[in-house]
Amino acid sequence: MNFTANAIIGQSGGPTCAINATLAGVIQGLQKNKSIHTIYGMKNGIEGFLQEKMIDLTKLTQDELSLLSVTPSAALGSCRKKLPQPEEDPGFFETLFSLFRQYNIRYFFYIGGNDSMDTVDKLSRYAQTPAGKTWPIKLMGVPKTIDNDLACTDHTPGYGSAAKYVATTLQEIACDCAVYTVKAVTLVEIMGRDAGWLTAAAGLPRLSGQPTADLIYLPETIFDEEAFLASVQKCLNEKPNVVVALSEGIRDKDGNYIGEGGQSGAVDIFGHKYLAGAARVLESLIREKISCKVRAVELSLPQRCAAHCLSGCDIEESLTIGRTAATMAEKAEPGEGNIAVFRRKPGNDYQVTVETANVALVANQVSNVNRNGINAEGNNVTDELLRQLLPLIQGEVEIPKKNGLPLHFTFQ
Amino acid sequence: MNFTANAIIGQSGGPTCAINATLAGVIQGLQKNKSIHTIYGMKNGIEGFLQEKMIDLTKLTQDELSLLSVTPSAALGSCRKKLPQPEEDPGFFETLFSLFRQYNIRYFFYIGGNDSMDTVDKLSRYAQTPAGKTWPIKLMGVPKTIDNDLACTDHTPGYGSAAKYVATTLQEIACDCAVYTVKAVTLVEIMGRDAGWLTAAAGLPRLSGQPTADLIYLPETIFDEEAFLASVQKCLNEKPNVVVALSEGIRDKDGNYIGEGGQSGAVDIFGHKYLAGAARVLESLIREKISCKVRAVELSLPQRCAAHCLSGCDIEESLTIGRTAATMAEKAEPGEGNIAVFRRKPGNDYQVTVETANVALVANQVSNVNRNGINAEGNNVTDELLRQLLPLIQGEVEIPKKNGLPLHFTFQ
Repeated sequence: MNFTANAIIGQSGGPTCAINATLAGVIQGLQKNKSIHTIYGMKNGIEGFLQEKMIDLTKLTQDELSLLSVTPSAALGSCRKKLPQPEEDPGFFETLFSLFRQYNIRYFFYIGGNDSMDTVDKLSRYAQTPAGKTWPIKLMGVPKTIDNDLACTDHTPGYGSAAKYVATTLQEIACDCAVYTVKAVTLVEIMGRDAGWLTAAAGLPRLSGQPTADLIYLPETIFDEEAFLASVQKCLNEKPNVVVALSEGIRDKDGNYIGEGGQSGAVDIFGHKYLAGAARVLESLIREKISCKVRAVELSLPQRCAAHCLSGCDIEESLTIGRTAATMAEKAEPGEGNIAVFRRKPGNDYQVTVETANVALVANQVSNVNRNGINAEGNNVTDELLRQLLPLIQGEVEIPKKNGLPLHFTFQ
Repeated sequence: MNFTANAIIGQSGGPTCAINATLAGVIQGLQKNKSIHTIYGMKNGIEGFLQEKMIDLTKLTQDELSLLSVTPSAALGSCRKKLPQPEEDPGFFETLFSLFRQYNIRYFFYIGGNDSMDTVDKLSRYAQTPAGKTWPIKLMGVPKTIDNDLACTDHTPGYGSAAKYVATTLQEIACDCAVYTVKAVTLVEIMGRDAGWLTAAAGLPRLSGQPTADLIYLPETIFDEEAFLASVQKCLNEKPNVVVALSEGIRDKDGNYIGEGGQSGAVDIFGHKYLAGAARVLESLIREKISCKVRAVELSLPQRCAAHCLSGCDIEESLTIGRTAATMAEKAEPGEGNIAVFRRKPGNDYQVTVETANVALVANQVSNVNRNGINAEGNNVTDELLRQLLPLIQGEVEIPKKNGLPLHFTFQ
C-alpha cells in the first residue's frame, strides 16, 4: 500500500512483565513505516475499541518507549473478550470493520495468548469473506504469556521474566527454609493451569549448584497422592527442610484439579466453598499424614508483574518480536491471519529468529512440556529441559528508579 | 583484655535478607581485634552451641564476607529457643558457661529480634551472679527483624530490604490490577503480627506519585469490618480496581485476630481448622457483602528472603552495626548486657549513628507505629510516617550472578 493508512494495537489477556516491551517494539516498528499516519492503541483491547476508546501512540518518544518496555502490566489495559464465530454473527464483525474504515485502520496488531490469537483468527476469517474483503486490513498476532504454552513458537515473550522470578524466588525460599533443624515441608504453588513450563523453572538454580525445590510437580503428569507423600517422606529422611514446587494445575488420574478436589469439605464463615488452591490442599494432607511442620506459599501475582526481576533476554526479544511483527505486517497480504513466532536455531549457542506462522494453528491450542522433560518418577524435571530454558532468563535489566522504587510508565 | 581470647556469634529467630550482612560485619570487626584468636559461629544459635556445633569463621576472606552480606536467610542456621530464668534454672547457665570456658570464649554476639535479646539479657543476668563472674564474658546483642519492632533503636537491620520489597511489589501489583475494567478488589497480606511497620511500607510508592495500595490497615488500630467495607465501597465508586494492604496481625475490638476469627466455621477435608489468614477471611467478606471480583494475595516468605530486591541503605547499615558491635564489645564491661542500636540524627538529612542500649530494655518489648502515623479513618498511613521510612529503602545492591540467578554464599 502506498497511500497513507493508520494502525491499531491492542493488548489482551493476563498482563505480563514483557507485554509492554512488545507494545513498545510494535510502535517502534510502525514509527519507521512512513506510510502510516496514526498509531492507535485500543484501551482495554477489542472491548474498548468497540467503544472507540483509543490512545494516540504515534508520537511516543524513544525515552518513553524505553520506560514503557520495563513497565509491568498492560499499559493499554486489557480485556478477556471471546469473539463470536464470523459465520454465526457476521454483524459483530461488520461493526468492527466499519470502525476500521471510519478510522482508516489498515493494520491491526493484537498482543496476547491463545485466547487473543482466537480473536485474530476470527478477524482473519471474516476478512476473507466478500464483505470483509471490501476493507483490506493486515492482521498480525504477537504472542505473550508467562505460561509459555503457545503452539508454533519456541517460547513466548513474558515467560523468561516470569521464569527468572520463579527460579530466583525458589532459590531464596530454599535458602530461607534451611535455617531450622526441625523437620518441615514448604509447598510453593506456581501459576500454570494447563502447562508446567513456569513451574519447571523452579529447577533452574540446580544447574548452578544452588539450592531450590527438592520436588517439582507439573500438570503434564498425573498427580498421585500416595506417590507424592512417599517422595516427601523420602526427602525428609535425607534432610530436615523439604521444598516442593507445584503447578496450580496438577490433577489426579480422573482429571480433577487437586486444588478443587480438596475443597469439597471446606466452607468459610459464609458457607462458601474455599478456593484453597493445590498447595493448601496438600498442606493439609501432609499435616495429616506426615505430621510435620508444613507451610503453603502461593507465588500469586508477583509471578506476572515482578518487573524488578526482569530477564534481559526476555525484554530484548519482546521488543524485537514487536518490531519485526510491524515489518512483517507491511509485507503480508490483507486478510491473512499471521502471528510472529520465535524459531530457535539448532546448535549449542542460543539464537532465535522471528518468523510468521498461521494464527489458526496457535489459537486455542496449548503447548505442553514433553514427557521426556520430566523424570521417570514424575516428581522433578530433567536437566535437559532446564538447559533448554536457561538462556531465557539470562541478562539483567536496569530499571530507572525514583526514591528507591521503580519508575513506571503511565499515559499522561 | 590483653590475653588471647575467642569469640562466638549466633543468629536467632526468623531469617531476613540482612542478618548475614550483620554477621559479616561482626566478623570483619572481630578480625581487626588482634587479641581474638578464633571466631566461632554457632550452628543454629544457642541450641546448636549447647551441642557444641560450631563453624570456624576466623579466616573468612573479604570476598567471602562480601558474598555473605548479600545472601538471604541465616548462614549459621537459626533456632527459636527460649532460655529459662537464671534464678530458676542456674544449672542451664552453668552448662553454657562451662562451654564458654572450655572454648575460651570471652565474647558472645547474638543477632536477632526481641526474643533473641531475651537470651542476651538472661545470659547477662547470670553473668552478674557470683558463679557467672568466675568467667568474665562480654555479651552483645545485635538487632535484626523485618518487623522493625525493637525498642530503643530508630529502626532494625533487615527492615529496609523487606520494606523495599513490599513497596516495590505493591506498586507492581497496583499496576497489574489496573488493566481490567471490571470492578475488583485485591487484598495483600503483609507480615507483622504485632507491629505495622512493614505494612506501612506499602504506602511508599505514593511519595513518588506511583500507584500502590488504596487502603492500608495496621494492627495498631482496631479493625472494624463495617468501616472496612464502607472504605472499600467508597474506593470502588471512584475507580474499578482497589488494592488493599493489610497486616496479618489486624484485630477486632476484642483483640481477636481477623485471620483467626474467620476460621471458626472453616474446616478442611480432614476436619482441621483452616488457617486462612486475614486476607482470605476478608476475601470471603467482600465476596459476600460487595459481590465483586476479589483476590487474596499473601506476600509470604519472599518478604523476608527476596534478596534480589535489597535496600543498599539496609545492607550498608547492617554491616556497619555488626562492625561497630564488635568494637563496642571490646570496650564493654564483662557481664553487661548490651545491644547495638541506631540513633537517627535530627535534621532533614538522613544520618544514623550506632550506640549501645541496655538489652533488658529491648528484650520482649514491641515498638509500635505511633497513632499519628495513621490517618484519622484508620485506613491509611500518613505522609509524615512515609517520609520517615523512605531513607531506609534507598540504594541498590548489585548481586553477583551465575547463569542469570543470584550467587549465594554457603559454607563449604
